[in-house]
Amino acid sequence: MKVAALAGGVGGAKLAHGLDQVLPAGDLTVIVNTGDDFEYLGLRISPDLDTVMYTLAGLADPEKGWGRADESWICLDTLRLLGGPTWFRLGDKDLALHLERTRRLGQGETLTAITGDFCSTLGVRSTILPMSDERVATKVQTEGGELAFQTYFVALRCEPEVRGFRFEGLDSAKPAAGVLEAIGEADLVVLCPSNPWVSLDPILAIEGVRSAVGQKPVVGVSPIIGGRALKGPAAMMYQQLGFEASALTVAEHYRSLLDGFVLDHADLELESQVQVLGLQTCVTQTVMNDYHDRRNLADTILEFAQQIQERMRST
Amino acid sequence: MKVAALAGGVGGAKLAHGLDQVLPAGDLTVIVNTGDDFEYLGLRISPDLDTVMYTLAGLADPEKGWGRADESWICLDTLRLLGGPTWFRLGDKDLALHLERTRRLGQGETLTAITGDFCSTLGVRSTILPMSDERVATKVQTEGGELAFQTYFVALRCEPEVRGFRFEGLDSAKPAAGVLEAIGEADLVVLCPSNPWVSLDPILAIEGVRSAVGQKPVVGVSPIIGGRALKGPAAMMYQQLGFEASALTVAEHYRSLLDGFVLDHADLELESQVQVLGLQTCVTQTVMNDYHDRRNLADTILEFAQQIQERMRST
Repeated sequence: MKVAALAGGVGGAKLAHGLDQVLPAGDLTVIVNTGDDFEYLGLRISPDLDTVMYTLAGLADPEKGWGRADESWICLDTLRLLGGPTWFRLGDKDLALHLERTRRLGQGETLTAITGDFCSTLGVRSTILPMSDERVATKVQTEGGELAFQTYFVALRCEPEVRGFRFEGLDSAKPAAGVLEAIGEADLVVLCPSNPWVSLDPILAIEGVRSAVGQKPVVGVSPIIGGRALKGPAAMMYQQLGFEASALTVAEHYRSLLDGFVLDHADLELESQVQVLGLQTCVTQTVMNDYHDRRNLADTILEFAQQIQERMRST
Repeated sequence: MKVAALAGGVGGAKLAHGLDQVLPAGDLTVIVNTGDDFEYLGLRISPDLDTVMYTLAGLADPEKGWGRADESWICLDTLRLLGGPTWFRLGDKDLALHLERTRRLGQGETLTAITGDFCSTLGVRSTILPMSDERVATKVQTEGGELAFQTYFVALRCEPEVRGFRFEGLDSAKPAAGVLEAIGEADLVVLCPSNPWVSLDPILAIEGVRSAVGQKPVVGVSPIIGGRALKGPAAMMYQQLGFEASALTVAEHYRSLLDGFVLDHADLELESQVQVLGLQTCVTQTVMNDYHDRRNLADTILEFAQQIQERMRST
């Protein structure tokens, strides 16, 4: 079963890794948000792309969720002594990736090609694609004005109250080479448990992506469990924007695209309300504490998708 | 005694360190070659400036001569695995300096101001100035064409035969703020034992520097001892350009500027020939194996300069 997964940060990367492990090699394409990308110390940083890449390469830090395991911070510590900015933490190994990516982008290579080479070098089995080779910059609109995403997310620790979002550069951004093809060839599109507002909405907003996804069986997984996000500001964003933070709200967020929706056991009580939206449901453990949990959730989603397809055929 | 020292790489940095140690704080200004500067991985690298700065800060690697002591290579090793260029070796601590310098240059700050802040942070007592805030790029002319200096020096290990040099950007380069002032206020200018062709000639070629130096008592120290350079291609360059590689040739190189010239014991036989050039001479140990040797040579030079000044007054 060919699968295209849309993913952002840590939660999305974990499920993508599960899918990567249970699918035959080459059957998974992960399309990753690059709206969080930014320039830092003159380097092009692609936080979500790297989280997915490190996770699928088995190199991700299991504690922090971002960055690499067995990382060191010698350069960053020296930079601090020199009075440089250190609010975005770059480890010594991670830094090499940013230096090399920035160098190759400067030579006119695409982010897609560079990411492909890195994945190959790091031994990633699946295909990882940035959503676009053009820059799309997620801006967080707050009472105090519009903030670059990483300023909001890392430097200000998500403290400003959110009023909305804007994806700068969207009008001139095309899907990266392979994105629409991967969706077109897919038997299933998975919306990973990533932040709907700032991880998956940017991907879906790229020209042609939403309509391509809409033509496929789509299963979404809620990043909100028991009213809370495991990591990151997704639940808080819903609340600040006037929504209840719940798996049901996430299902409504993606409603027009979804065929099935995966809920955690903790949200069993919401299952019937999600079904009222016209969606098939699957209740399972969505919290991924270890590699085993990732594979289990991936297997469950693939089974669920088969059931959905069988019901689609029978109606 | 106020001293302005012109310096390039390792040998020059060692003598500058000796002068830094024996002069009262604030009496030394080191004017450093930036003709070797280049862009690498998108970073602005200033090899001579950093060698002098690290040396005066007591942070230089005593074995290699370049880079920092207690350095690690985690980023570089990772960069190699990713297929990136690693011919110019950047340690993790060193890298922080290049990142921060590049960031601040990008914000429009001058190399002089940034270097001043770094020196202050690293506890350097003396003033270290780049020769210019404008880019001057030393090109090495070889049979195979013109090479960027670091390509010749590091990537090609000085293998191409040298036919000449060109200092690109010289016409529009001004001395950095403080350079002409430091020379003007100096009681003595020291030409450190650096490569005459590619370390000191670029500094002297900057508009106004040669004539400012020419108005001062000037003492040069030969980087060539017993016909050989302790480090680097100086001796080989003289030979390839059709000169004998010797301390005498170095004295002739700077002849119009010099009042006195310092020779190593190994070159005692050349002393009379240097005197024939009209220069006062001092024969001493110029090889600096440790901190003690650096201070000794500096003390000897300062005494020698006082003798020269006394003789100047008495004639």
